[in-house]
Amino acid sequence: MDGVTMVAVASIIMIGFTISIGSIGPALGEGRAVATALTAIAQQPDEAGTISRTLFVGLAMIESMAIYCFVISMILIFANPFWNYVISKAGG
Amino acid sequence: MDGVTMVAVASIIMIGFTISIGSIGPALGEGRAVATALTAIAQQPDEAGTISRTLFVGLAMIESMAIYCFVISMILIFANPFWNYVISKAGG
Amino acid sequence: MDGVTMVAVASIIMIGFTISIGSIGPALGEGRAVATALTAIAQQPDEAGTISRTLFVGLAMIESMAIYCFVISMILIFANPFWNYVISKAGG
Amino acid sequence: MDGVTMVAVASIIMIGFTISIGSIGPALGEGRAVATALTAIAQQPDEAGTISRTLFVGLAMIESMAIYCFVISMILIFANPFWNYVISKAGG
Amino acid sequence: MDGVTMVAVASIIMIGFTISIGSIGPALGEGRAVATALTAIAQQPDEAGTISRTLFVGLAMIESMAIYCFVISMILIFANPFWNYVISKAGG
Amino acid sequence: MDGVTMVAVASIIMIGFTISIGSIGPALGEGRAVATALTAIAQQPDEAGTISRTLFVGLAMIESMAIYCFVISMILIFANPFWNYVISKAGG
Amino acid sequence: MDGVTMVAVASIIMIGFTISIGSIGPALGEGRAVATALTAIAQQPDEAGTISRTLFVGLAMIESMAIYCFVISMILIFANPFWNYVISKAGG
Amino acid sequence: MDGVTMVAVASIIMIGFTISIGSIGPALGEGRAVATALTAIAQQPDEAGTISRTLFVGLAMIESMAIYCFVISMILIFANPFWNYVISKAGG
Amino acid sequence: MDGVTMVAVASIIMIGFTISIGSIGPALGEGRAVATALTAIAQQPDEAGTISRTLFVGLAMIESMAIYCFVISMILIFANPFWNYVISKAGG
Amino acid sequence: MDGVTMVAVASIIMIGFTISIGSIGPALGEGRAVATALTAIAQQPDEAGTISRTLFVGLAMIESMAIYCFVISMILIFANPFWNYVISKAGG
Amino acid sequence: MDGVTMVAVASIIMIGFTISIGSIGPALGEGRAVATALTAIAQQPDEAGTISRTLFVGLAMIESMAIYCFVISMILIFANPFWNYVISKAGG
Amino acid sequence: MDGVTMVAVASIIMIGFTISIGSIGPALGEGRAVATALTAIAQQPDEAGTISRTLFVGLAMIESMAIYCFVISMILIFANPFWNYVISKAGG
Amino acid sequence: MDGVTMVAVASIIMIGFTISIGSIGPALGEGRAVATALTAIAQQPDEAGTISRTLFVGLAMIESMAIYCFVISMILIFANPFWNYVISKAGG
Amino acid sequence: MDGVTMVAVASIIMIGFTISIGSIGPALGEGRAVATALTAIAQQPDEAGTISRTLFVGLAMIESMAIYCFVISMILIFANPFWNYVISKAGG
Repeated sequence: MDGVTMVAVASIIMIGFTISIGSIGPALGEGRAVATALTAIAQQPDEAGTISRTLFVGLAMIESMAIYCFVISMILIFANPFWNYVISKAGG
Repeated sequence: MDGVTMVAVASIIMIGFTISIGSIGPALGEGRAVATALTAIAQQPDEAGTISRTLFVGLAMIESMAIYCFVISMILIFANPFWNYVISKAGG
Repeated sequence: MDGVTMVAVASIIMIGFTISIGSIGPALGEGRAVATALTAIAQQPDEAGTISRTLFVGLAMIESMAIYCFVISMILIFANPFWNYVISKAGG
Repeated sequence: MDGVTMVAVASIIMIGFTISIGSIGPALGEGRAVATALTAIAQQPDEAGTISRTLFVGLAMIESMAIYCFVISMILIFANPFWNYVISKAGG
Repeated sequence: MDGVTMVAVASIIMIGFTISIGSIGPALGEGRAVATALTAIAQQPDEAGTISRTLFVGLAMIESMAIYCFVISMILIFANPFWNYVISKAGG
Repeated sequence: MDGVTMVAVASIIMIGFTISIGSIGPALGEGRAVATALTAIAQQPDEAGTISRTLFVGLAMIESMAIYCFVISMILIFANPFWNYVISKAGG
Repeated sequence: MDGVTMVAVASIIMIGFTISIGSIGPALGEGRAVATALTAIAQQPDEAGTISRTLFVGLAMIESMAIYCFVISMILIFANPFWNYVISKAGG
Repeated sequence: MDGVTMVAVASIIMIGFTISIGSIGPALGEGRAVATALTAIAQQPDEAGTISRTLFVGLAMIESMAIYCFVISMILIFANPFWNYVISKAGG
Repeated sequence: MDGVTMVAVASIIMIGFTISIGSIGPALGEGRAVATALTAIAQQPDEAGTISRTLFVGLAMIESMAIYCFVISMILIFANPFWNYVISKAGG
Repeated sequence: MDGVTMVAVASIIMIGFTISIGSIGPALGEGRAVATALTAIAQQPDEAGTISRTLFVGLAMIESMAIYCFVISMILIFANPFWNYVISKAGG
Repeated sequence: MDGVTMVAVASIIMIGFTISIGSIGPALGEGRAVATALTAIAQQPDEAGTISRTLFVGLAMIESMAIYCFVISMILIFANPFWNYVISKAGG
Repeated sequence: MDGVTMVAVASIIMIGFTISIGSIGPALGEGRAVATALTAIAQQPDEAGTISRTLFVGLAMIESMAIYCFVISMILIFANPFWNYVISKAGG
Repeated sequence: MDGVTMVAVASIIMIGFTISIGSIGPALGEGRAVATALTAIAQQPDEAGTISRTLFVGLAMIESMAIYCFVISMILIFANPFWNYVISKAGG
Repeated sequence: MDGVTMVAVASIIMIGFTISIGSIGPALGEGRAVATALTAIAQQPDEAGTISRTLFVGLAMIESMAIYCFVISMILIFANPFWNYVISKAGG
């Protein structure tokens, strides 16, 4: 198994691993936040505005972690410096 | 086992891994959010509109993580740059 | 073990892995949603309509993740581009 | 170990894995749904009809995931395209 | 280790794996359903009929998953197409 | 390691695995069911008959899964078709 | 490592595995049942007879699973057909 | 590594494994039963006799599983038929 | 597999591992903090200002850990001293 | 690696494994029993005598399992029949 | 694989492992602390000052553990004595 | 790797394993017991004497299991019969 | 792979492992302690002094365990006797 | 890999393993004890003295287990009899 293949295989494996494992935490965290928001609205309808605003800020921060994972996956697919190096070597 | 086979095998494995593992978190998170929405509606029927709206925004954000995983799976099947490279090499 | 066999084995393994692991999350999430719906109906029978509607939207979104996994399994069985490539090579 | 044996072994392993792992989630989910249905009926006997109806729709959706796994197992036993390919090759 | 032995070993392993792992989920699910049924009867003895009926329908659906696993095990023991193929080859 | 030994080893391993793993789920499920039955009787002594009857039906269904595992173990010890085949070959 | 040794090693390993793993479920299940029985007696002393009777039936059913495991262990030690076969071969 | 060593190593490993893993379940189960007995006595001191009696019967049944494991360990140390066979062979 | 490939593979694997595993803790922690903030606002709307301020400080501290992981990932991609060393050697 | 070394290594490993794993269950079980005893005394000081007596009987039974593990460890160190056999062979 | 590569690979792996695993505990701990602080403020707004002060001291101590991990990661990247030794040897 | 090294390595590994794994159970058990003692004292200050006495007896019994593990570790370091044997052989 | 490399690799791995795994327990423990302190202050503001003092003593003791791990990591980096020995040998 | 290296590697691995794994249990146990102490003081401020005294005795006993692990780590670094033996041999 030569170097190009190895790097390709490792990249493919981590592309999927990063986004799938990286979506577990944020998904559960957002599920919890949304669930509590609904309970809070049901309990205190008059504060729906404040609750929604706080919820969206919170969701944005939690989502940011899923975005990091997605960005890393995208970099590994389309802008992978290790892959670029080995194929430039192999092509040389 | 030559390079083409290796890359094919790695791609097949990650296609399934990504979507199956990546669906656990969002599925549990959405299940929790939906469950609380139903409790909230039963508790405060007059706020059903606000609750539904908040729920759908939340579901959309949680679903987005499953979508990321599905997109990555699709890229690995139909637009896999590593696969394209190795078969262009093998075909050359 | 030649390339055709390898790709076949990897495909068979991921077909089953994808759908079996991918059904755990949605099944638990739907079980939770259905369970809460029943509690909510028992608590507030007059809102059974709203609750059912919200439940079915929620179930549809959760089910969608199981569908993604099933679709990927089906693609791996009947429209597997890696398999098509290696058997066209082997047959050539 | 030749290709026919490999594919046979992989198929046998995944037939059992798919249905056994794939039955854990739906079984727990249905157990939860049924359990809550019984609590709900005990709490609000007058709504037994609505509760039963919602329960059966829910069970059907959860059961669908076990059915997917069973279908995949059956395809792997009786309509396995990879197996058909390798035995046609071996028999040729 | 020749092909016949390999297939036999894989079949034996999956026969036991399928039924033993496949019985965990249904057993826990049924245990939960039965437990809640008893609580429900103690709470609302007048609805014992409705509760029992719903319980038995639920148990039947949960049991169905254990039955799937048992059927797969039986097929692997007594009607295993892969085993039949390899012994017909070995015997030829 | 010849084929007879392999099949014997695999059979011995799965005999124990099947019954030991297969007894975890039913044992926990029955423990839960019995525990709730006792609570229910203490709470509603007048319904002890109905509760016992429902309990025994439930225990029978849960026990059935342990029985499946025991039956598979027994088949693997005393009526193992794979073992019969390999020793008839070895003895021939 | 010849066949006799292999079978002996596999038998020794499964003798201990079967009874040790197989005792976890029943022990926890019985512990739960006994614990609830004590709570129930403290709550409703007048029903101590009915509770004890139900408890003992339940314990017997749970214990049956530990007995299955013990029986399998004993068979593997003193009436192991695979061991008998290989030593009759080795001694022949 | 000859056969005698293999059997000795396997026996040593399973002696410790059996009793250590086999003591987890009963210890937790008994801890739970004892704990509930103390709560029950504190709640209903007049029934201390009945509670103690039921507790001791329960502890005896749970302890029986630890005893099974201990017996198997002892058999593996001092009356191990596989060990006896291999050393009689080795000494012959 | 030469040194350059090894370092590339190790870097690729850890880039994804770091950010995906490192996002689980912060995501769950933030989910919990946001959820409690919403409950707290619903319970004491007059303190929404203090609660939001404390929440944002807390989120910032928890987010800092995800940032550490992201920074390490970025260093491994774009400023990896080990990679720089081995390619300078390989290029020399 | 000759037989004497193998048996020594296996014995050393199991000495530590047995007592360390075997102390987890009893320690947690006793911790639970002691904890409940203290709650019970605080709740019903007049029954401190009965509670203590029951507690000590319970602790003795739980401790017995740790003692079994300690005894097995001691046998493996100082009266190990397998070790005695192999060193008598090696010394002969 | 020579020594320089080995040390580089090990360093890369531990850089990511340390910070990603090391952020789980502190992130969950801080999430819990922040969550309780918000509850406490909602419950006793007059003590917001004392609560905040205690919270920040606590967060600082918990954060210190994440800082240790970050420091170790940084040392492994930029001041790694083992790496310095092996490249000085390799360069000599 | 000769016998002396093997035994040394195995001893070193088990010294640390025994005490570290063996301290988990007792530490959690004692933490629980101490925690409940504090609750009990706060609830019933007049019984502080009886509670303390019972606590110390309980802690002593739980600590005994950690002591067993410590003793085994010490024996493995300073009075290891297997080590003594192999170095007397190696030195002879 | 020579001895110097091996020792370097093992040291690097354990430096990170020690501090990252060793920070999980203390971080969770401190998080719990801080959380309860905040609840306690909210419940009994007049005792804020006593509570804070007890909290800081407790945090110090829990932090001590993280400090042990940090010290061991530092010793492994900067005062590692095994590393010193092997490089003095290699340099000799 | 010679004996000296092996023993050094094993020692390094266990030094870190012992203290990091060994700190999980005590840290969680102490966290629980401290947390309950704070609750108890908030609930019964007049007993702060008795509670503190009992807490410190309890913390001392739990800390003792972390101390055992630290002592074992220190012995493995600075007074390791196995290391002393192999370097005296290697140096001879």
